[in-house]
Amino acid sequence: MATVTRATRTRVARGGIDLGGTKIEAIVVDSRNNVLGSARRPTPTTGAPADVAKQMIEAMREACKAAGIDPGSLKGVGVGSPGVVDNGSVSNARNLPGWEGKFALGGTLTKALRTQVFVGNDVQVATDAEFRLGAGKPYRSLLGVFWGTGVGGGLILTGKPWLGRGGAGEIGHMVVKIDGARCTCGRRGCMEAYAGRASMEARARRRVDKGAHTDLFHLMAERGRTRLTSAIWAHALERGDKLAEEIIDEAVQALGAGIASAVNLLDVEAVVIGGGLGVRFGEPYVKRIASAMQPHLFHDSRPPDVLIASLGDLGGAIGAALLAKATRS
Amino acid sequence: MATVTRATRTRVARGGIDLGGTKIEAIVVDSRNNVLGSARRPTPTTGAPADVAKQMIEAMREACKAAGIDPGSLKGVGVGSPGVVDNGSVSNARNLPGWEGKFALGGTLTKALRTQVFVGNDVQVATDAEFRLGAGKPYRSLLGVFWGTGVGGGLILTGKPWLGRGGAGEIGHMVVKIDGARCTCGRRGCMEAYAGRASMEARARRRVDKGAHTDLFHLMAERGRTRLTSAIWAHALERGDKLAEEIIDEAVQALGAGIASAVNLLDVEAVVIGGGLGVRFGEPYVKRIASAMQPHLFHDSRPPDVLIASLGDLGGAIGAALLAKATRS
Repeated sequence: MATVTRATRTRVARGGIDLGGTKIEAIVVDSRNNVLGSARRPTPTTGAPADVAKQMIEAMREACKAAGIDPGSLKGVGVGSPGVVDNGSVSNARNLPGWEGKFALGGTLTKALRTQVFVGNDVQVATDAEFRLGAGKPYRSLLGVFWGTGVGGGLILTGKPWLGRGGAGEIGHMVVKIDGARCTCGRRGCMEAYAGRASMEARARRRVDKGAHTDLFHLMAERGRTRLTSAIWAHALERGDKLAEEIIDEAVQALGAGIASAVNLLDVEAVVIGGGLGVRFGEPYVKRIASAMQPHLFHDSRPPDVLIASLGDLGGAIGAALLAKATRS
Repeated sequence: MATVTRATRTRVARGGIDLGGTKIEAIVVDSRNNVLGSARRPTPTTGAPADVAKQMIEAMREACKAAGIDPGSLKGVGVGSPGVVDNGSVSNARNLPGWEGKFALGGTLTKALRTQVFVGNDVQVATDAEFRLGAGKPYRSLLGVFWGTGVGGGLILTGKPWLGRGGAGEIGHMVVKIDGARCTCGRRGCMEAYAGRASMEARARRRVDKGAHTDLFHLMAERGRTRLTSAIWAHALERGDKLAEEIIDEAVQALGAGIASAVNLLDVEAVVIGGGLGVRFGEPYVKRIASAMQPHLFHDSRPPDVLIASLGDLGGAIGAALLAKATRS
């Protein structure tokens, strides 16, 4: 058998871009999904989709530079995007600036990078990455839960992504409390209204307005941030901040109820927890979420395996790069 | 082409038994799923699984007699059973007498009826019947919701039943209210705790104990029943019974939230509503459930079609008979 050299593997290098509400993560991987180069840029908070696309192109060029590869020689680039993805176009990406309408993201990037660009749903590509390369490898059915600014879900059933009519996986908007808290989506009682980072921050502000004490916003100012990042929540918990503990506990209870509901409906083999907060809080919180699921599981004598996403922060970008592989190799 | 005569079609007749908590429904169908004969018996409320099996055998023999066919000449019999079904055995059927442990239902019936008996989950076979022969025919993905004593769910994804690890479809035990009402399963806040007929009856009793007025139990006594049947609920609603309206409205709200949650997760094309209450209340209530779903749907501009089960009361038995077809023809 011929030995595959690094030179051979880089000749089939692919790009992956994870487009998040906070940051753009671009990577270049070889045929074995080893990362050859990466770059990170903040996601623009103002402007239009074209401004976001420009930052994505720049990030990809930087990642290529780090890998010593010309973007045009990549065997395709995959993008994991929020919003509704339809044949390379993205609409309704409500965490991105001015992105309610449809924008031809795939076409724009294909032209600028001189290689074909494939666009998929961010949460679904991250789930697919965990299934094919990460914590989900031993299973045939899987629920990916990405706990970050929002709470997204991805499904693998019988070894294949389940997309429904294109909009499946909105686990964050499963109702865990009828007439409950207002969600960032405008509805009431969604799991995300309790567990999404954005909602958690809004809850913390409201309680401070009502006289509660917390170091959360003090830590935020100290670090020169404008949002309560996962790191700030983690730090507040380490310091025993009571309000932070209370809000995180409510988030864990909501995740437990919502994920257990999904398991009662689908009876999947495993649940993989990722996302900014999921990865930051890690194993101890995965155990807490599994405990919070337990009282709601109908088949409680054989719960699914509940695991931390093993590809960590880069999972989204690695999953995106798989999009280019699936359609090209 | 040869003409298929009635005689030919009855030579490939199959049996179907729907084993419910209240009644046992047995039918004989021809190769085109036309019902040739049927029989109904009350499900024993005391005794052991063998007593239930005995009534099932008797019901099947009666249905055969009505169809003019010897049970032994049937090309198999299918059974839709509650509980956990595993290779012909049934365990954990909590609405049936003394049926916590495992009972070899398929083997017992095969021996008595002298034809092979196939056992499947009751809700799943009813969903399959609606998908193959009923309201679900135009779709490739489907959620069946059976609103009766409990609330069961069945899934068809990409044209095939989705069973998970064998226990999928427990939509009645999705959590719609954290720390909510106590469910008959012992957990809190399940959809079934608000929408299941058994829970609705318990809620009515508790409110009467607290001084609420209702004709529900009066109607029950008048009809010589020991439970609030679907017909009694329907009659109370016709008479404008306030407590009945209130409890049914809570049930509809819970169904709306729970079914919308399932749709947010799976994005199926259609939802088919069946079950004792679903079939009894019919089209107007299907519309009310669809309206109750709407505020919770994430993709609210394109809700799934929500339809009444078109096979009605016999759907479960027809679906059961399909089990014999799938494996024999």
